[in-house]
Amino acid sequence: MAARIDFWFDFASTYSYLSAMRIGDAARDAGVTVTWRPFLLGPIFAAQGWTTSPFNLFPAKGRYMWEDMARLCAARGLPLVQPPGFPQNGLRAARVALAALEHDAGPAFCRAVFAAQFGEGADIAQDATIAACLARAALPESLLAAADDPARKAALRAQTEAAQALGLFGAPSFTLGTAIYWGDDRLDMALAAARADKD
Amino acid sequence: MAARIDFWFDFASTYSYLSAMRIGDAARDAGVTVTWRPFLLGPIFAAQGWTTSPFNLFPAKGRYMWEDMARLCAARGLPLVQPPGFPQNGLRAARVALAALEHDAGPAFCRAVFAAQFGEGADIAQDATIAACLARAALPESLLAAADDPARKAALRAQTEAAQALGLFGAPSFTLGTAIYWGDDRLDMALAAARADKD
Repeated sequence: MAARIDFWFDFASTYSYLSAMRIGDAARDAGVTVTWRPFLLGPIFAAQGWTTSPFNLFPAKGRYMWEDMARLCAARGLPLVQPPGFPQNGLRAARVALAALEHDAGPAFCRAVFAAQFGEGADIAQDATIAACLARAALPESLLAAADDPARKAALRAQTEAAQALGLFGAPSFTLGTAIYWGDDRLDMALAAARADKD
Repeated sequence: MAARIDFWFDFASTYSYLSAMRIGDAARDAGVTVTWRPFLLGPIFAAQGWTTSPFNLFPAKGRYMWEDMARLCAARGLPLVQPPGFPQNGLRAARVALAALEHDAGPAFCRAVFAAQFGEGADIAQDATIAACLARAALPESLLAAADDPARKAALRAQTEAAQALGLFGAPSFTLGTAIYWGDDRLDMALAAARADKD
């Protein structure tokens, strides 16, 4: 059985951007297969009484996050634009991602959504942005219909409930069975654990 | 001018334990001088409406923290005992630390407090524990009087206010001028920045 991990991400999450842009190469180098699992942090935050991102609720933490992101993006050669409005509404993009991830180009679509938002400051709630990301991944524009498909809506709800049942509380998270690794800072440890688990 | 950073820690903070046990060697290797700055997270948390540690307020986050700590401590060969009661009351130990840090053995005292708490499960609110830590650092037991010294009380309050004014919201934090590096995961980046700043 091949080594594998689940990669849980929320499109509105800045640190998920960092992981999305490197997990493909890092996992390939480690010989680990990745299952991309978009979910929504909103319902998980709401369950603990938060009405928005902790980066908005706690201003010092929010200021730090953008400072930290600027340093990390500079070190990795990634563009960073603070998008207008944070967190963005990634609901429609996440439903489309569920459809896109049934194709080999699914991860490319997800990377395109993150790059549009945090690299260019685009609004990922807009269908035009999502359509451009499908095009960038060479996926058919017809996948945009997933955003309004009741089955995809239910699937995204189920995915978010699965995240909550696992005990996830932030993004990105990496899981290996019931073991959780939270944050881009833990990606390498998660990959090493997946690899050790398989060996 | 020598490269230097400020190391802000709260004795009750698990991740501060990780940094305290390695910052001496890491900073020496990097050629960076460290100023140890104990402070209290309690007043900072209280200012944002929290009555206890976020690891207690948000149970999923708390469960994860202990899982993450267990993995990190195992990887570093550090003992880890979940102390009875979390977070512990580190108020008296922090006042004594301010006095101890006027001596060369100050960092050894701080490491002893962390090791007693998270390595052995001792209660650092007890004067007996603090006295044993002074002994372990070969510092005079008379420093225990700092715990009740109005000047040390005021100094600890001032230190906590300085942390808040800098925008600190968690521990450990490392600062270099107004730049903040939060978390044990950022220690190496902070040291590299201090070194680059000096070169």
